[in-house]
Parts: sequence; C-alpha cells; structure tokens
Amino acid sequence: MKHIPNGKYKPYPKIDLPDRTWPDNTITKAPRWCSVDLRDGNQALINPMDMNKKLELFALLLKLGFKEIEVGFPSASKIEHDFLRKLVDDNLIPDDVTVQVLVQAREHLIAKTFKALRGVKKATVHLYNSTSIAQRKIVFSKTQEEIIQLALDGVDLVKKYEADHDGKIFLEYSPESFTGTELEFAARISNEVTARWGIADDRQVIINLPATVEMATPNIYADQVEWMSRHLDNRKNVIISTHTHNDRGTSIAATELALLAGADRVEGTLLSNGERTGNVDIITLALNMTTQGIESGLDFSDVNEVVEVVEKVTELPTHPRHPYVGELVYTAFSGSHQDAINKGLAYQQAKEDPFWEVPYLPIDPADVGRTYESIIRINSQSGKGGVAYILEKNYGYQLPKAMHPEIGRAVQALSDEKGRELEPEEILQVFKDTYFNINEHISFKDVSLTSDNGTSKCVLTYSYNGKEVTSEGEGNGPIDACKNALMKEYNHDFTIKSYSEHSCGDKSTAKAVAYIEIQSKEVLSCFGVGADNDITVASIKAMFCALNRAFS
Amino acid sequence: MKHIPNGKYKPYPKIDLPDRTWPDNTITKAPRWCSVDLRDGNQALINPMDMNKKLELFALLLKLGFKEIEVGFPSASKIEHDFLRKLVDDNLIPDDVTVQVLVQAREHLIAKTFKALRGVKKATVHLYNSTSIAQRKIVFSKTQEEIIQLALDGVDLVKKYEADHDGKIFLEYSPESFTGTELEFAARISNEVTARWGIADDRQVIINLPATVEMATPNIYADQVEWMSRHLDNRKNVIISTHTHNDRGTSIAATELALLAGADRVEGTLLSNGERTGNVDIITLALNMTTQGIESGLDFSDVNEVVEVVEKVTELPTHPRHPYVGELVYTAFSGSHQDAINKGLAYQQAKEDPFWEVPYLPIDPADVGRTYESIIRINSQSGKGGVAYILEKNYGYQLPKAMHPEIGRAVQALSDEKGRELEPEEILQVFKDTYFNINEHISFKDVSLTSDNGTSKCVLTYSYNGKEVTSEGEGNGPIDACKNALMKEYNHDFTIKSYSEHSCGDKSTAKAVAYIEIQSKEVLSCFGVGADNDITVASIKAMFCALNRAFS
Repeated sequence: MKHIPNGKYKPYPKIDLPDRTWPDNTITKAPRWCSVDLRDGNQALINPMDMNKKLELFALLLKLGFKEIEVGFPSASKIEHDFLRKLVDDNLIPDDVTVQVLVQAREHLIAKTFKALRGVKKATVHLYNSTSIAQRKIVFSKTQEEIIQLALDGVDLVKKYEADHDGKIFLEYSPESFTGTELEFAARISNEVTARWGIADDRQVIINLPATVEMATPNIYADQVEWMSRHLDNRKNVIISTHTHNDRGTSIAATELALLAGADRVEGTLLSNGERTGNVDIITLALNMTTQGIESGLDFSDVNEVVEVVEKVTELPTHPRHPYVGELVYTAFSGSHQDAINKGLAYQQAKEDPFWEVPYLPIDPADVGRTYESIIRINSQSGKGGVAYILEKNYGYQLPKAMHPEIGRAVQALSDEKGRELEPEEILQVFKDTYFNINEHISFKDVSLTSDNGTSKCVLTYSYNGKEVTSEGEGNGPIDACKNALMKEYNHDFTIKSYSEHSCGDKSTAKAVAYIEIQSKEVLSCFGVGADNDITVASIKAMFCALNRAFS
Repeated sequence: MKHIPNGKYKPYPKIDLPDRTWPDNTITKAPRWCSVDLRDGNQALINPMDMNKKLELFALLLKLGFKEIEVGFPSASKIEHDFLRKLVDDNLIPDDVTVQVLVQAREHLIAKTFKALRGVKKATVHLYNSTSIAQRKIVFSKTQEEIIQLALDGVDLVKKYEADHDGKIFLEYSPESFTGTELEFAARISNEVTARWGIADDRQVIINLPATVEMATPNIYADQVEWMSRHLDNRKNVIISTHTHNDRGTSIAATELALLAGADRVEGTLLSNGERTGNVDIITLALNMTTQGIESGLDFSDVNEVVEVVEKVTELPTHPRHPYVGELVYTAFSGSHQDAINKGLAYQQAKEDPFWEVPYLPIDPADVGRTYESIIRINSQSGKGGVAYILEKNYGYQLPKAMHPEIGRAVQALSDEKGRELEPEEILQVFKDTYFNINEHISFKDVSLTSDNGTSKCVLTYSYNGKEVTSEGEGNGPIDACKNALMKEYNHDFTIKSYSEHSCGDKSTAKAVAYIEIQSKEVLSCFGVGADNDITVASIKAMFCALNRAFS
C-alpha cells in the first residue's frame, strides 16, 4: 500500500452548532431552481457548446420549467457574448424567465457584461470572488480586508452600470470556495455586500454558498448553511442559494440537507455536468421530491428526451445506473425481485387508491416516460418470474405459476452455458424445445370425443412401444376419458395434478394452449404443454407431452 | 406537465429521535468493509461474470485489501456453486479472509450452501428474508409472526449444518427491504434471530440493514441506524452493517451518516455495481476517508487498474465525472481554476509541511495513480495558465507570467473559431505562428558583439523599409547596444520593459529561448520571442520579433 505522509490530509473541522435544527426538518416544498448548465456545465466540457447546441439546451431548459438560467460569462469569450445577444435579438427569453450572467469584480468585464445584457428585462448579475483561506494565501496574497474591498468594488460597479440598464437587475454574490472559507468571514463579506447593494424588501439579494470543492460529509454543509442562515443580516431578504459539486459523491445529499437547513434556492445542472465531478444533478433532486409527493415545479415526465439532448450537447455519456434515468434502473435481474415486482404491479392495478407500493421500484417508470416491461432481462441470475413474464408479454403464453420453476431452470441452464443474458427469442426457443414435439416415448395421433350428460367418451389413437394403439375410454370429462383409454395399455401410473388453458393470438389465428401437470410415485410434478385449434385436443396433447417428459 | 394523482407518492415518515447524537459525530476510523461485487453486483449484470472474470475480480479484491468478500449465492445457480468450489479446491482463499454466501431460509438451499462451503475455514452465512410492509402484504401474505418464524427456521437450519462444518461459521442476518420495514419490527426480528443463534462474546452476529431501495433523505437512514443501535440486544456483540443502494443518488451520504450513527461495517461494490442504481461505491467511501486523514484499510493507490478490471468484468462503463476515478476529475478547464492550481502546486512543492492545500484538487492525483498535467485541456474557456502550462510541460517554453494573457488570447481565438478543445500541437503552432519568423516590418540579419569593462559594442545588420542597414551601437549590455544601433535609423521609439531567457532541450540540442517585452507610447506591452544557439542572438531576435508585432 502506498504510504501517504502523516498530516498530508486532515479532518475537516466540525461546525460548532449543537442546537442545529435541520435534522428535525423535512423537505416540504421545492426550492427556486437555477440551471447553470450553460455556464458551469459548459465551461467544463472537452468541446464547449457551439451556438446551435446552446440554443437547443436553452429551449430544453425552458420546456422543463426553469425560471432562472445562468447563460454564461459573456465578458470571458466571444461565443458566450454572442449567445446572450442572440437570445435578446431573437426575443427568446420569456417574460417570466430571469437570465443570469457570471462576472468578476473588474470594470472592463462588468462593462462588457452590461453591454451584452442590453435589452434583457430581468437579469441576475452573479458577482464572485474567491474567499477561501487557501486562495487568499496562495493565489491572491490578499488580506481579508482586501478581499472584502474587491467584492465591494464589484458591487459598486454593478450599481453604476445598473443605473443605465433598461430592465431589472438582481444581484447574486458568491463567496467562491465557500467550503474552504471561515464561516465568520463568509458571513462578514456577504453582509457587507448586501448592505452595500442596499438590500431591502424590494431589493433582495441572492447569497450563493458554493461547495466549489466538496470537502466534508454532507451534514457539515447543512451545518454551514444553518449557521449562515442565522448570521446573515436582513435574512428575510436574502435568498440563500446552494451550489454544490460532487467531489465526494454527496452533492445530492448536501443539497437536500441544506434545504432542511434553510436554503431557498438551488443551482445545478442536468445529469451532473460541471467542473471535475460535476455540479449537483437537478433531475435527481427534483424526482427525489416527486417520490415524496412534493411538486418539484420541473417537468421530468420524459427523461429520455432530456438525456438525449444533454448527451448531444455535452458529448458525455449517461451512466446506465444513474438514478431515475439510467438504462438499467427499471430493470430487475434477480428472480425474487422480478416476482415481487410482478405481484406489486398486479396489486397496484387491482387496488383503488393511487399510492404507489410496488417493491423495488421507487417510482412508477411511466411517470418519467420509461417502462418496466421492455427492459426486464433474463440471465442465469433471474428466476421464474422473469422468464414467465417474457413468455407472456412477448408471446402470450400464460404459464401456470407452479410451472415457473421448471421453465426457469431450463432457461437458466442455457444462460449459464452461454455465459450471457438470453434474448426473448432464445427464451421462446427453450420453451418450445422443452415442451413441443416431444414424442419419443409415446406419441399422440388422433382422438374423437362425445359428451353426454356429464360423461365423456373417447376413441384415442397413439403410438407406444413401436406400435399404434387405438382404445376407448370413458370419464367425467375429455381428459379423464382419454387417461382411462390410455391406461388400458400404458404402464406408468399417474394422476392429473393441475390443468389450465387459454387462447393465444388474436381472433383469426387464435389457438388454444393447455398446460397439464401430472404426478406419480416417481415424479412429484411434471408439466406438459399442448397447442391446437381445438381446445380439447390441446389438452390431450399437453397430457402426452407431460408423459413424454416424465417417463422417457 | 404530466399529472401525477394526489396521494400516489407520500413523504417518508420522520424518525422520532429528537436526542439523536450522530450529527455531532465525526468519522474517525474505517469500518469493516465487505465487498458484494461477486453477488449483488454480479446478479445485476446484463451478462453475469463467467468463471475467469470472477477469478480475476476476486484476485483484485484481495489485492485491494478486502477481508470479507461475498462470493455468491451458491445454491441459486451452478456457476455460483462452481466458483466457490474453485476457490476452495485451488486454495485461493487466504487465511485472513472470510468468504460470505447468501442464502434463503429453506432447507434444500442451506444444505446445498454448506456442501459448497466444504473446506472453507472462515465463512459468513448471510441469511435474509424480506420484512417490509409492502412485501409482507403483497408478495408473501404473511403476518409478522410468520415472517419471524421464517427467519428463526433459517437460523435453526444454519445451526444444524454448522455443527457438521469443519471451519468457523459466522451468521449475518438481513431484514431485507429494511427501509420499508417498521423499526420496531426490524429490531424485534433481529433480536429474535441473534438470541436464537446464541449471540455471545465469542459468537457475534452481523445485523445488516439494507436500504434495498433508497426511500428517503440520507439523514433518515442515519436516524434509523442510531435507533436500531439503541434497540438491538447485546449491542456489543452485534456488528451493525450497512448495505445501501443509490436510488436517490445518496448512497455514499447514507453510508457516511450511518457510520456517524454507529454502524460498524459497510457492504458495497466497486464503482456502484448492483441492482438498478447500484450498491454504494466503496472506492468513493474509502477515498473520502483518505482525504480526511483516515486510514481506510483499502489500497486505492492505482485506481486506473481497478477501473480497468471492473469495466472488463462488468462490461459497464465508468462515468467521466465519477469521483476520484473519472477521466475528467483531475482536469481544470477554466482559466482561474488552472491559474489557482498552478500556484497551488508550486506552493505545495516549495513548502516544508505535507498538508495538501492545492485549490480545486481535493486529493493529490498522485495518491491514486493519476496525474494532473496529462489531462489539462485547452478550450475557449481556459485561460492563460493552461496554455502556458502546456507550452512548458510539453515543449519546454517557460513563458514569463506577464506574457500569459497575450498567448492566451491567441489560443482562445483559435479555439473559439474551431469550437473545440485544442490539442497541444495546435497550441504550439499558435505559439510559433505568433512569435516565430515574424519579419515583415523589420528583419534581423546578423550581429557581432564585443564586450569590455561593462560596455558592449555591436555591429548590427538588418533590413528595414526595403533596404539592408548596418549600424554600430554601444550600451551597458548587448541588447542595449543593439537597441542603440537600431535607433540610428529606426523611427519607432520604445523601451525594454522586461527580459527573460532559458535553455530549452537537452544538452546536445539545447537552444536558448529569449522573451523580450517592449513598451512605447502607443503600445503598453508587446512580447517578442527569439531562439538561437547563441544566447545573445536569441535575445536580439526576440527584440526584433517584438518590434514586428508592435509596429507592423
């Protein structure tokens, strides 16, 4: 094991907040959502989006219901500027949508930003500077006072240009690298910024608390947000915003716990695009709320479309296990899971109340435009439920439940042998190979039947031990009559344990399919299957099939 | 927006635990790790692993340091059985490693399991049955008492076969779908199980609490674990184990908060393989501990190897933004990030103490076998730091800091134009096109120099305005002498603002590269670059380059 020097990494300090209240809270309503896909997301792409991709993504964000969209850093590059101008010139920003632009506290950048904003009715100017201990020391060599002055200079500049802007300007301030900043200092600089801006009931300020780098367990971020919430002046006019990254894989959790702790607003991206490990994924956050019965305010009823657009514009793949949207997340592989899901779906369909109670499916796939049935897969791990489900859904065979283990074993053996999942066609083939045209031991030829007053009589023809036999029988139904006819020559005693039958296919091509389970001293249970246009013949064929399988 | 019926989804109930202590705790040591890659992971694969893949993965798990490995469900399929026999027969299980096998409470399965375990020195038999409200009602139609009886029958069977087993047997019991089970019932069934097993100081029991489906924010799971920890009998001999899935994207958080709440042991997989959204990812959990200075007990010093093996055996990709291991997570795209990282790396290298303080890099990439330098990328978003870094690392050019914005703008213009990231070769080409062979305005031809007592004299030849000029000059160094020689005919006044020079290439091919920054009334700053075998000539060439760029 590689040696890491003592002291290279240190525990993140605890937050002194013994009277924290967030662990007792529950999320009861959605926050204000702000998409930063076009800024933080875009800046972290191998190939940043071109104009067409930006326009397509912007249209998707509107369709999903975002009312706050960070569209870029227009003073930083030509295309970011041109995109904003395109939105304005082509009148693409709805009246109820606020566009947000990022900028640093430097006059030529702020001037350029306001030039790019000309004609925007509602804009948030997002001013930031890094406040962390490490960056103050290593990157800027500035004191706390100098860092505060930088932020205040930025506020003054935004106010200066705001005066000449024909439209509403909102201020957002980010003490960047907040999670690396002393809480006291983060509160102090934020309070100086809001005061300088002139915070008031009609002049609210967004204070964004970026986990620019995720540095601790998510409860710490919640403590920090609750601490800040208590220490920000004029709290009712401060919109506390989260902006989490996923360096420790807990950005969803950090955001959710921060909402418990009093955050009002969430910045994030679709599918976690963003620097390094990405920003928090807004799809997961919103659907987590949906599954708790909370209106998220965002429309993820067709996640496939969302994934398609995001993959196209980011040129990044989506993991097959990504919550809610991954290719495999509505798939059940294990037999017991499949069995429980099938029972749950049947239960759900049968009952009156809408409460979703299907095991192993935390959300109804239909609520996000996905399906369970199309993605069930059969492999050596999947049990009876899966195989029977495929045979019914794809081919209409309604196998009796007691038969599931038998066909399940046959499918599993082939899957084990091939070392891979079987396709539905292969499962059908296993089913046919196991139950159809099985007649080496005894072979059904023909039957004629009469029925009168509850008594059936038959003339049955079959071949057995190399010779053709015709024999008559009587019983309380056609199967019983045929069994009795058979037993005059046949030397294996057996009883009929169960019987079921159904039609298969639509009217013109419908056949009857029968399943007969037999039992004998030697064989506890063995199924046979028969198919014929005549429902009686189907059942006789099923009995012969069972005999062949049990005694050959 | 799609309408979801009222009441289809309901909030997960709060846990009544106002005196919870976990939010005040910190993780201070690693838990017992158990890999379930070969069982829960394998069962959720489109193509389950064949024997060779299982062997390769098992070898990797040993190499990483796992001491508890769930190897499968040997009574469920032939290959799971054969794999365990192979491990035993080929003597592949080290003495300090416990293998774990999953089984349901049914005699023929437990018999088969113990047959497969023959010869194993230390084995954990992992018995489970589903205890959730939904499954009791919908899947099993059993009362709480019947569900408890099922578990106790299982315990009795394991004890019965344990008696004949030549080796140590540990019991693990999972109330499966724990997160869907009433806490009182989960505690009751667990306590009955441990009592029936005969829990004692030398007979500890693992009680595993599966978030089989993740159903609430992660603080709830922590509350549940703390609640269970208070309600389990003989707590000191119970090993509380977590087994989280990622349906809400918070499995890492749920596990970490559960550790705060008293969990002793963690089940998970590498890279989150497992049913649906996967099990919790042990790589992220362990490296989260590493970055807090906690010995994880697992060796992830070469994550690339781990990713390679896991991708091979699972046939699933790794997301480029996966914490710690994704392709993009040690990449900085934005200029300010690159600048801060460069300063941070320099600071880190220069200082005495090992404490890792590099902005935007939560872990030293070298500690996991990765590098920062090879994956920095240049696009229209990246600033000066990135370009200079590439030119230095790949080609040896040590551009003075003041020159970074100038070359940065040139690279950004091309990147904007191409709409994509630039390759290092393309950046080099931009650099060469900008600074080399620029002589349309004025062209250096030759120089001879003498130096005596601090005074340099030169004879300089150049072409200017279509004619060749030779002129003499004197100064306090060769550049000053040449500038004075030049000024006899040249009509742009300028001063030398800065100068730097370094050798480039190894001994036999080394050239000198010089950078000269000039200033004039019209031009605030303009750089020129010159390269030559002769360090003096290199600097004269650099001056001519700057003049061409400034005044042509």
